[in-house]
Amino acid sequence: MPSFGGIEAGGTKFVCAVGTGPDDLRAEVRFPTTTPEETIGRAIEFFRQQTEPLKAIGIASFGPLDPNPASPTFGYITTTPKPGWSHTDLAGAIRRALGVPVAFDTDVNAAALGEHRWGAAQGLDTFIYLTIGTGIGGGGMANGRLIHGLMHPEMGHVRIPHDRGLDPFPGSCPYHGDCLEGLAAGPALEARWGQPGEELPADHPAWLLEAHYLALGLVNFICVLSPQRIIMGGGVMQRRHLFPLVRRKVQELLNEYLPVPTIMEQIDDYIVPPGLGDRSGVLGAIALAQQAAR
Amino acid sequence: MPSFGGIEAGGTKFVCAVGTGPDDLRAEVRFPTTTPEETIGRAIEFFRQQTEPLKAIGIASFGPLDPNPASPTFGYITTTPKPGWSHTDLAGAIRRALGVPVAFDTDVNAAALGEHRWGAAQGLDTFIYLTIGTGIGGGGMANGRLIHGLMHPEMGHVRIPHDRGLDPFPGSCPYHGDCLEGLAAGPALEARWGQPGEELPADHPAWLLEAHYLALGLVNFICVLSPQRIIMGGGVMQRRHLFPLVRRKVQELLNEYLPVPTIMEQIDDYIVPPGLGDRSGVLGAIALAQQAAR
Repeated sequence: MPSFGGIEAGGTKFVCAVGTGPDDLRAEVRFPTTTPEETIGRAIEFFRQQTEPLKAIGIASFGPLDPNPASPTFGYITTTPKPGWSHTDLAGAIRRALGVPVAFDTDVNAAALGEHRWGAAQGLDTFIYLTIGTGIGGGGMANGRLIHGLMHPEMGHVRIPHDRGLDPFPGSCPYHGDCLEGLAAGPALEARWGQPGEELPADHPAWLLEAHYLALGLVNFICVLSPQRIIMGGGVMQRRHLFPLVRRKVQELLNEYLPVPTIMEQIDDYIVPPGLGDRSGVLGAIALAQQAAR
Repeated sequence: MPSFGGIEAGGTKFVCAVGTGPDDLRAEVRFPTTTPEETIGRAIEFFRQQTEPLKAIGIASFGPLDPNPASPTFGYITTTPKPGWSHTDLAGAIRRALGVPVAFDTDVNAAALGEHRWGAAQGLDTFIYLTIGTGIGGGGMANGRLIHGLMHPEMGHVRIPHDRGLDPFPGSCPYHGDCLEGLAAGPALEARWGQPGEELPADHPAWLLEAHYLALGLVNFICVLSPQRIIMGGGVMQRRHLFPLVRRKVQELLNEYLPVPTIMEQIDDYIVPPGLGDRSGVLGAIALAQQAAR
């Protein structure tokens, strides 16, 4: 059976795996994201140690990045605020070292592909996968294919209402201040409340505000793309009590404007956690590799 | 040569036309939108007067509406705030009266199709068509097909930052108050400044605020869908001096986060007026009819 490699290249850690799907992951390694040279080197080393040859490798990367195979900077991470990683030819380095076809997309587009193939988006043609963690990212499919358009979605950077009387925190996005990511990603939670989200009790007022911001983002995504489902993953969403809060706020904000039963009555199946748990990204990378090999 | 009918069903007026494209419009009529019975009756009368038989009719309608042919309420306008028009079976009434296939979509999705076929979106696969007029609506294509997903986009209802110190106007959307439509559609302009947009001089401060709100909407659309182009039509955009203001604000708000030449250097070709002028909607309706006949 042919084997595929997947790299989930995150801003905090890299996950590399080999296999063909969720029931056949033959090897996996996780290590922190440090310099490009060291981090990419460890990924290459992991794949070189595998005994079976790989047909292709998929990379699910943090961004912004260039996912257009026709572009001279295809495979590059472009303007990331992450120190040292701007203009890094991630896909090229992997391809040159390992000599196999390399597919390259955003972490969230890859996770969307993984969820479509094996998880919570099976059978859908238009949906969104979000991660709420160190940053906020969103990808997805429209009309049955991953969304690229001009580049790729950057859903975390939508602008939303921010009542500075209620919440004086100025936002933590280095580009946009109080965009969705600046107000609601993990670092914003921690900076605003003085302790990380993992440590805030479930009845802390932090969570109502967090659900409010996330719901504002979701309402915007719904108005623009009309997704059939929204999958919310990432570290912050590990706090499962957030889901019912976000669902209720989305309904309140839409105010019965969109009269579809999916939103009005079945919202528990509309805004959901990933079907693949915390493996959407790396499995999505393997799904990208399988696409590239076809 | 076969002939097709198109209906642009707007909240203010209906436009009906017969032909095959922008260079072959054989008849056209415009009349105000009054009650459903009277208005639909006039459209039927217009098509009955045509001597050539029609192969199909396309309807580009205000919404929200049900564009899903598999749904029992396909062809209905659903929860519109427009008095008398909620739950109106617009496509069914036309089909029953005229006995031809009827295609049905939002005014803005149809306009997007028209612009794709004959106008400013030729050759693109992912783009947005907006109308800024009595309301704000947005439709478009993703991966080469019109966006439907769960229902259809409702881009005018995204939530954006609203500084009530700077602009105390509470917003005019009956569902959401100060969503994009509530802050920036024609009626909001008129209510805020005491005179309609057509009468406000080009150097009036109204326009900088208007461009600011529209740019916030556009930035959100760019972050979610990554369109290759954004086409802005509708009555408010007849004031052409708005285009350079909106383009500059979009660049300011993105703050060099998306490093693509299309946005950084070629924004005059990125945010553009419709190629079909004020006929995108009715020509799009004809394009819908042609799709339905194939």
